Amino acid sequence: MSINDLKKKVYDGNMALVKYGLVILTWGNVSAIDREKGVVVIKPRGIDYELLAPDDMSVTDLDGSPDSNNRYLPSVDLDIHLEIYRNFKDVQAIAHTHSAYATAWAQACEPIPVYGTTHADHFYGAVPCTRHLKPEEIAEGYELNIGKVIVEAFKGINPMQMCGVLTAGHGPFTWGDSVKSSIEHSLILDELAKMALLTRTVNPNSALLPKEMLDKHYLRKYGENAYFYQDK
Amino acid sequence: MSINDLKKKVYDGNMALVKYGLVILTWGNVSAIDREKGVVVIKPRGIDYELLAPDDMSVTDLDGSPDSNNRYLPSVDLDIHLEIYRNFKDVQAIAHTHSAYATAWAQACEPIPVYGTTHADHFYGAVPCTRHLKPEEIAEGYELNIGKVIVEAFKGINPMQMCGVLTAGHGPFTWGDSVKSSIEHSLILDELAKMALLTRTVNPNSALLPKEMLDKHYLRKYGENAYFYQDK
Amino acid sequence: MSINDLKKKVYDGNMALVKYGLVILTWGNVSAIDREKGVVVIKPRGIDYELLAPDDMSVTDLDGSPDSNNRYLPSVDLDIHLEIYRNFKDVQAIAHTHSAYATAWAQACEPIPVYGTTHADHFYGAVPCTRHLKPEEIAEGYELNIGKVIVEAFKGINPMQMCGVLTAGHGPFTWGDSVKSSIEHSLILDELAKMALLTRTVNPNSALLPKEMLDKHYLRKYGENAYFYQDK
Amino acid sequence: MSINDLKKKVYDGNMALVKYGLVILTWGNVSAIDREKGVVVIKPRGIDYELLAPDDMSVTDLDGSPDSNNRYLPSVDLDIHLEIYRNFKDVQAIAHTHSAYATAWAQACEPIPVYGTTHADHFYGAVPCTRHLKPEEIAEGYELNIGKVIVEAFKGINPMQMCGVLTAGHGPFTWGDSVKSSIEHSLILDELAKMALLTRTVNPNSALLPKEMLDKHYLRKYGENAYFYQDK
Repeated sequence: MSINDLKKKVYDGNMALVKYGLVILTWGNVSAIDREKGVVVIKPRGIDYELLAPDDMSVTDLDGSPDSNNRYLPSVDLDIHLEIYRNFKDVQAIAHTHSAYATAWAQACEPIPVYGTTHADHFYGAVPCTRHLKPEEIAEGYELNIGKVIVEAFKGINPMQMCGVLTAGHGPFTWGDSVKSSIEHSLILDELAKMALLTRTVNPNSALLPKEMLDKHYLRKYGENAYFYQDK
Repeated sequence: MSINDLKKKVYDGNMALVKYGLVILTWGNVSAIDREKGVVVIKPRGIDYELLAPDDMSVTDLDGSPDSNNRYLPSVDLDIHLEIYRNFKDVQAIAHTHSAYATAWAQACEPIPVYGTTHADHFYGAVPCTRHLKPEEIAEGYELNIGKVIVEAFKGINPMQMCGVLTAGHGPFTWGDSVKSSIEHSLILDELAKMALLTRTVNPNSALLPKEMLDKHYLRKYGENAYFYQDK
Repeated sequence: MSINDLKKKVYDGNMALVKYGLVILTWGNVSAIDREKGVVVIKPRGIDYELLAPDDMSVTDLDGSPDSNNRYLPSVDLDIHLEIYRNFKDVQAIAHTHSAYATAWAQACEPIPVYGTTHADHFYGAVPCTRHLKPEEIAEGYELNIGKVIVEAFKGINPMQMCGVLTAGHGPFTWGDSVKSSIEHSLILDELAKMALLTRTVNPNSALLPKEMLDKHYLRKYGENAYFYQDK
Repeated sequence: MSINDLKKKVYDGNMALVKYGLVILTWGNVSAIDREKGVVVIKPRGIDYELLAPDDMSVTDLDGSPDSNNRYLPSVDLDIHLEIYRNFKDVQAIAHTHSAYATAWAQACEPIPVYGTTHADHFYGAVPCTRHLKPEEIAEGYELNIGKVIVEAFKGINPMQMCGVLTAGHGPFTWGDSVKSSIEHSLILDELAKMALLTRTVNPNSALLPKEMLDKHYLRKYGENAYFYQDK
């Protein structure tokens, strides 16, 4: 895929955040990587969505060095995206939103528990929440350090079976094997966050989904003997 | 009605789930039965709504044997639908959604209590929630067994006076004497689930609607001496 | 105003309930009265909104005797409307919805307390909730008796300073000096019900608005020395 | 900028309140000031939004003396706006809404606490809530006194780092260096109020965002060494 095609996909992805109601104003950002070319494309920082065009997307390498043709500086969250790309090798795109329900769980610094099969259909376990950064991690290399605590939170978790995370006090990051998939995970995550909150409101002591049900639903879609899709 | 007409109705029903905001992405499914022909039509599994056409609907008999002309495999939830059709003889169509409020009650594994006349106008009593499946019921014949615990939950309940159910940890299934009616029951059920949740939020100790009011409202619409409609 | 004009206004009012999101499907009804002619116009019972035309509106006198030209039977709630018209002499139109937030308070059988000036700008005090009907009041003349407990709840309350009520376990009725005003009161009431619920969620022990503030806000709009509008 | 251009901007701002869903009916008002000319433009009081045209906006000086060309009386909230303009010298525009979530916190008389970085990105600390007025402050000069308690609540707070306030029992006022910015602050404030409420619902004992995170997020956008925008 050409850089221009990738820019178009990332641009469309950012617009989809608005269309899906996952962000207001200029909040949120989407990026994608071309791993062969070693190129990352991301929304530029702090510009109104209505002023953006596909060609305004910002291009860097995997270390964050900007392409000389860039019109704009990349999103301030670039280092978070890069750290995810460097550590989770199958991730091809990342979406960051401030969607209200997922953000509420992030602000409460709680993982989103698995209360139902809708969750189990998409995320293989509770969606983790990072630890808070230490003062010195905030003072120096703040965005990079957010990336690092995300990676830290995935010890023992396969990021392609858990395509999203909550950053403590901040909000959700989701990813996937395409821009489309990364954004759908944002949409799904907020819906799950909403359902989990409503479930707790019905009954604060609601039990978690039994482990057998979690396995059944996740694995009938994504396991070795999956049968949820036409061609799996 | 021809199979093509039935396919069109089922297709339109699936689209209505999206239009009413009852599902996102490819969630949910709708089916209908032609009891004379012994034919069931259902949404195919795991395909984007925007890629579906009426002719893509999947056809089986009441035992789940697929029609040889099928382009796609039927929904993974087919066996749930079939078990309902086999046991509830007046059901002509079934809708399954993951609408947020009804799903929250299902995830809390609680029936939706009758707090008001809006509920009593449409469902004759608390909307039941199935029991959880046992590990061995999950391991073998999972979808069929969901159908079975639905039927089990209706011991002593007339399914045409209670056109919907919550499956524990999962979500709502609703039905009716037509595709339109099955979907309207999904829409109504989610609205009732929302109202019940809000009622509990106003006052966690809210009293149930008196039995006389439940009877009055349900029966003025659907009883022997009903007078709610023009021609009843 | 001619009967046809009044029918058009009532028809438009019923459509506005849908447009404002105050009802789904065929829920709710709107009526208006021409007090000089002694004529009441109301939505017919149990017909899909999309099938209705202005001329389908049902006409009765103040005792409920139908006009011989009626195409359809009037709403089953007719007797509630009539009892309000007979007792609250300045009411010119009535709207009944099942809007979710107002209905939640009605289902909890609680008046909506005055937590803020938004409420005080429109309803002069807590919005009353009727008592539940007794079994014998449900068995005979049910709808008329709802009208009666509404009137009963207004002992000492001026219905033109409190243009709405909650009926216990059921939902809101609102009114005004025009169809437009009756519907705006439905819209406002649901917004106030939502705000009151959210206020309680922020803090279950939230204090009521001080009486001086209630007076100030209501009376600067509707009192003798009102100055909120251009020409009062 | 000509007075007509300012009127157009204020008119567009009022319309934006409706477009963003921050008000219903005629609720809310927007004003702007031309400090060189000493002229304030504000929505007229109590007129349906659909009847308003840009030229209907009302013009006064900083003491509230109306322009002789005014078609309509200014908003009843004029004195609140003027007191803010007189005391917060960098404010160029003010928006007042009754948006549901911000109003809920105002009705609960609680500042909106900083639970997350979304808040810290826009408001530098908890959004203050004024004290209630005393009976004598309500009886005489009510609107002016609301302006005064707003100013009182900002002792030690820079109003350009905290572009909004809750008035006790009433609702939010927000401002900025342009009409656009004042309205965006209304939109953001309601979103933050919603997120804070949801955070408390997830866990009533949610901890506040650490001070270092508040500083980091606010100052990377608006501090001396800000790097959030392209050109700061």
